[in-house]
Amino acid sequence: MPRVSQDHLEARRRQILDGSRVCFARYGYEGATVRRLEEATGLSRGAIFHHFRDKESLFLALAEEDAARMADVVAQQGLVQVMRELLAEGSDHPADWLGTRLEVSRRLRTDPEFRGRWAERSHQLTAATRQRLLWQRQAGNLRDDVDVDVLTAYLELVLEGLVSHLAMGLPADDLGPVLDLVEESVRRHRVRASADS
Amino acid sequence: MPRVSQDHLEARRRQILDGSRVCFARYGYEGATVRRLEEATGLSRGAIFHHFRDKESLFLALAEEDAARMADVVAQQGLVQVMRELLAEGSDHPADWLGTRLEVSRRLRTDPEFRGRWAERSHQLTAATRQRLLWQRQAGNLRDDVDVDVLTAYLELVLEGLVSHLAMGLPADDLGPVLDLVEESVRRHRVRASADS
Repeated sequence: MPRVSQDHLEARRRQILDGSRVCFARYGYEGATVRRLEEATGLSRGAIFHHFRDKESLFLALAEEDAARMADVVAQQGLVQVMRELLAEGSDHPADWLGTRLEVSRRLRTDPEFRGRWAERSHQLTAATRQRLLWQRQAGNLRDDVDVDVLTAYLELVLEGLVSHLAMGLPADDLGPVLDLVEESVRRHRVRASADS
Repeated sequence: MPRVSQDHLEARRRQILDGSRVCFARYGYEGATVRRLEEATGLSRGAIFHHFRDKESLFLALAEEDAARMADVVAQQGLVQVMRELLAEGSDHPADWLGTRLEVSRRLRTDPEFRGRWAERSHQLTAATRQRLLWQRQAGNLRDDVDVDVLTAYLELVLEGLVSHLAMGLPADDLGPVLDLVEESVRRHRVRASADS
């Protein structure tokens, strides 16, 4: 395939993903009709479903992209940093990102088939979080009286709560100190460590 | 009104709430059609809407009932205990309770008018959690280096995460040690306290 054509295809794919992300966030999965997806992407249904087999495949591609983006931030800065960025204004995880994530949550609850298809795609965030914690433990920054798997599950649970909180439109300006507490509770405590030893 | 008639009305109201709770949990708010509410409650639409003005009022009554039930457990045993009960099998907060809660979450996100109506009803859990923490602080069981409002917001955030986790059908058998960590992180640490003083 000539290069220009390949670039064109990728630009189209990008255009569909960006437009439909906003559309899913605004209307939910069921409410994002083909008509609305056309409006949001500025493309015809023929063009859209040339790139994605069906609406479900399009949605999964979006959710997968978000999970990969989060895993990158986790690997570099940790899961608490991902949460801080969610709180910060002008973040590169805007509200439509939350919409995608909450839509995944809802469909996992109501659609057992979707649960199976999503499970294959959702491990990367856990893996990135766990790996980051292992590094922190090696560096002596992590508490060593609690298993890394427990700490991973703890951070993921808090993230899930934060996503839900933000998605509900609840006030979040008081959550900075809460994240400080979360971060502190996985860290090594010098005083306690020396008293134990 | 004669007593027997009053009892009858209350029994009917109960029957409608219990049946529609299951119906909302299974089909979601939009999917719980009047036809399905009739089937789930075993009553006609005339009987149902004699007791509740409309579907929205019925749903709000359910959600309010759940919030009051949780606030009772919090006042007596604390929010971490509510979370432990959510994890326990044979709990009296079955999956349909989760369904109601997640439906509230979803509607808060997509329906600004609902947000206003719900806000009036949602303060009791926060108030109960905060009051319980204040008692614990007076009893010397709570860490005293973090504001009670921050600890309240922290526990509510974890609860929100747990509700979301369970509602998504994710495995929860490994979350007991996570809740131990949450509980420990709001408690007074004797070693650290003596080092500080």
